[in-house]
Amino acid sequence: MGPKRCAVASDETLMRIFTVPEAPDSTLSKIELEISNNLVGFLNENIAAIEKPLHEVEKDFQSAAIPEQPMFVSDYAQDIMEQLVAHSVHTASPSFIGHMTSALPHFVLPLSKLMVGLNQNLVKIETSKAFTPLERQVLGMMHHLAYGADESFYGKWMHSAKTSLGAFCSGGTVANITALWIARNRLLQPQGDFKGINSQGLVAAMMHYGYKGLAVLVSERGHYSLGKAADVLGIGRDNFIAIKTSDDNKVDVQAMREKALELEAQGIKVMALVGVAGTTETGNIDPLSDMADLAQELNCHFHVDAAWGGATLLSANARPLLAGIERADSITIDAHKQMYVPMGAGMVLFKDPHATDAIEHHAEYILRKGSKDLGSHTLEGSRPGMAMLVHACLRVIGRQGYEMLIDKGIAKAKYFAELIKQEEDFELVSEPELCLLTYRYVPKAIKQAIANANEDEKIDIYAALNRFTASMQKRQREAGRSFVSRTRLTPVQYDNQPTVVFRVVLANPLTSEAMLKEILDEQKQLAKTDPIFKKYLAKYI
Amino acid sequence: MGPKRCAVASDETLMRIFTVPEAPDSTLSKIELEISNNLVGFLNENIAAIEKPLHEVEKDFQSAAIPEQPMFVSDYAQDIMEQLVAHSVHTASPSFIGHMTSALPHFVLPLSKLMVGLNQNLVKIETSKAFTPLERQVLGMMHHLAYGADESFYGKWMHSAKTSLGAFCSGGTVANITALWIARNRLLQPQGDFKGINSQGLVAAMMHYGYKGLAVLVSERGHYSLGKAADVLGIGRDNFIAIKTSDDNKVDVQAMREKALELEAQGIKVMALVGVAGTTETGNIDPLSDMADLAQELNCHFHVDAAWGGATLLSANARPLLAGIERADSITIDAHKQMYVPMGAGMVLFKDPHATDAIEHHAEYILRKGSKDLGSHTLEGSRPGMAMLVHACLRVIGRQGYEMLIDKGIAKAKYFAELIKQEEDFELVSEPELCLLTYRYVPKAIKQAIANANEDEKIDIYAALNRFTASMQKRQREAGRSFVSRTRLTPVQYDNQPTVVFRVVLANPLTSEAMLKEILDEQKQLAKTDPIFKKYLAKYI
Repeated sequence: MGPKRCAVASDETLMRIFTVPEAPDSTLSKIELEISNNLVGFLNENIAAIEKPLHEVEKDFQSAAIPEQPMFVSDYAQDIMEQLVAHSVHTASPSFIGHMTSALPHFVLPLSKLMVGLNQNLVKIETSKAFTPLERQVLGMMHHLAYGADESFYGKWMHSAKTSLGAFCSGGTVANITALWIARNRLLQPQGDFKGINSQGLVAAMMHYGYKGLAVLVSERGHYSLGKAADVLGIGRDNFIAIKTSDDNKVDVQAMREKALELEAQGIKVMALVGVAGTTETGNIDPLSDMADLAQELNCHFHVDAAWGGATLLSANARPLLAGIERADSITIDAHKQMYVPMGAGMVLFKDPHATDAIEHHAEYILRKGSKDLGSHTLEGSRPGMAMLVHACLRVIGRQGYEMLIDKGIAKAKYFAELIKQEEDFELVSEPELCLLTYRYVPKAIKQAIANANEDEKIDIYAALNRFTASMQKRQREAGRSFVSRTRLTPVQYDNQPTVVFRVVLANPLTSEAMLKEILDEQKQLAKTDPIFKKYLAKYI
Repeated sequence: MGPKRCAVASDETLMRIFTVPEAPDSTLSKIELEISNNLVGFLNENIAAIEKPLHEVEKDFQSAAIPEQPMFVSDYAQDIMEQLVAHSVHTASPSFIGHMTSALPHFVLPLSKLMVGLNQNLVKIETSKAFTPLERQVLGMMHHLAYGADESFYGKWMHSAKTSLGAFCSGGTVANITALWIARNRLLQPQGDFKGINSQGLVAAMMHYGYKGLAVLVSERGHYSLGKAADVLGIGRDNFIAIKTSDDNKVDVQAMREKALELEAQGIKVMALVGVAGTTETGNIDPLSDMADLAQELNCHFHVDAAWGGATLLSANARPLLAGIERADSITIDAHKQMYVPMGAGMVLFKDPHATDAIEHHAEYILRKGSKDLGSHTLEGSRPGMAMLVHACLRVIGRQGYEMLIDKGIAKAKYFAELIKQEEDFELVSEPELCLLTYRYVPKAIKQAIANANEDEKIDIYAALNRFTASMQKRQREAGRSFVSRTRLTPVQYDNQPTVVFRVVLANPLTSEAMLKEILDEQKQLAKTDPIFKKYLAKYI
């Protein structure tokens, strides 16, 4: 960090920061030029490869006092390159395959700058104008992708002032909350003297309808945001019921049916079933058609959380995996996951354009009745124009471009699964259905030890393997060359015991087969020097 | 729009969009260069001055089919310049004084691009690393600004894995929902056999605690997002009780006390009081100290919605207006309003670092207990690194810089109020307390007609004035030179009848006194040709 120059708050300084852009040779301009010319190179060069411990990083972010005096932009830019950028995460790196975040198409960077410069607020037409029809079109395109209604449907509803085919939001969590908010409010709608849950609240609603409780049923692999939705909406996490999955990590619909009937016999109304299309941990897709049948039987809302997997619909080859999604009442899709849009582009789609009636709201100064303001049907209020970036990706990449990207990701995951299976010291834990798989490193000798172990020894080995896997994952991340994530599953081959596994998501188009080989090679090397292995597992060999 | 060139989805095309930036002479690069060199000029030149009707704009956003083939970036850029940018809203224009959105400091544009390029996800350390301590520092700085705890407090809590001093979110609505979610869950916390509302839900909670209902009390000028929060949280809009304001648009605390005692006598628990620090419609600040006293009496949560007005705390001169805010349990502040940060930077602050315990959640693969992941205490999940832009503004502008901006805005509003008062054909409806005021155009002759009118005539004139004001506002916006917004109040001088008024927010540092004069002059001219005036008001002169 260079010596600090003294800046002073004055009329002139302030006017300058609102009007005069940086000179081309300023630090910030140089950074921007590097990003424009070669984002991948910029990230490779400026994000430190070797991990610095968090408590070290925190040292640069200690003061709670807002500085009194202004600071020169160039000095600030230098500071954040050293203190922030160097210690951020290289989410776009093709060898960082542990996240759902991937590389970005280069054109989204200048478009983001345009979006920020325009600084529209999508809550209302008055502060967004053409951005509102654009967002409505993007929602229409995604609705069409999922539900495939005919042209006259979109002609009638896409730009209708009364309804909305979906809602843009910051991400999948708000999308899931919005979907279940609608499900709850439609179930507990006005009837006779009862003015509806939105007016009178949950307690009055339950008394009116005579339900003893509400429940939502979802696979045990459902995303944690669903539990959060149950909390926020007043339903309670205990009433958000996890149903076991089969060995393929898909929900057991028969078990779900039994549970639902048991609850309804107790006077507890099943408010919604949630299907998962691409679980966060294993990437599997629930049997959506069977779930749609069950939802119909129960006369309840059917929501599909396709935050990650929804982009699969863009591939004609892979979309049959999601068959039944078109029967969902609502669908969550995050464009910032497999649609290669930057962070902050969630969506929820509604089959019925009138679904949003249940959450409609107005105000005196905006969102007046009859306006086309999007804010009258969203959980959020003020929002940026992220829809522009989704629009850009849909048009520039095109459906066929997306199809190639999706298909390649799945093919790469199948290739990696084969690679793992061929290695006697690795073990594939979950087969890839989409581009996500889990595995672990279990040397052949340990596999044999498990086969010969008694129950007590097995428990010890399982525990040791979990600690070993976590240790390997952490050491690989810290070494900085590559990154796989980890999670905990309960696979049948480990007697349904909690099992720590490596998890990889292969959506980055820049990840090559050679890199995948290198990642396995690196893990083999790491295993040789792993302290946990030496301490707890070496003795079994 | 130029002739469309044919692009084809191929491996090469796809790899290029992830790796090869645009050539410097491409359309998109040229746009970006213009933005960098002169954002204000770019917006002035490219946003069409004369308004195009929405149904015309919509024509370019009709197809619900996702295009099959890719498109060249340059072609796309040309399309959106003509179809989107030209018909967006010039929120940064110094003569567009109807919004809470203002001009942006130029350095946030390149920083936004850096933020998007880094594509961090703030839900967890694993995908954000140094961005997490940075965000915690920004929350600490804002907490310090509002609550001014001592250094040891921040040393202990700012980077604590167990707690959070606040939550970043997309905007004030999510901030308000988060605050009231916490208030609800703390009130209905675990006790004895009862596991808490978060686990067992609202109905079980009410049965356990024996409350007949819950209520939240707020000024009739409270933001509409509070009603939305009441709906989402299961409390019901009817239990979100609007308390009348005095003539100065500040809530009548005595009326609030009476209502609260009446509710509690009926067995309805007052869950929270909400104070407004800068109402959306008039910019006034509730008597926060008196409300804090009342909240203490009632032993309930005290939330302050300072989404717009919170930035006033940055001015030592103006902050006494918000006295008592330091006694609030939670505070909402939007950095994208008076802190000059681009759209999408909301915050909620918690006085007690343990407040977030009531909404804490964990998952297997992230947000593990003991981690410093911010996502375990937020309503949203995946989120972008907007905190960086707030951090940059706080450091580059500095507290003293902000003080000058805040003070200037208030001074400008007082100047404009004087200007209006000097004009016999205008009428100031609400005095500016911060930089927001409301007024209307009421020719002297009409003022006299009202003074002499009987009750029936008065009703007619009031109705005509409302339609006339709305017509003027719409015509001024459509003319494209300037923009004031409008809202509806119930001022005493109009016998508390619904009264449509012009509303201006004077936070843009580039708005000059000369521009304000021009806006009044333009309105005088518009009045002369207004069809509503001719039809319904001319006869009274």
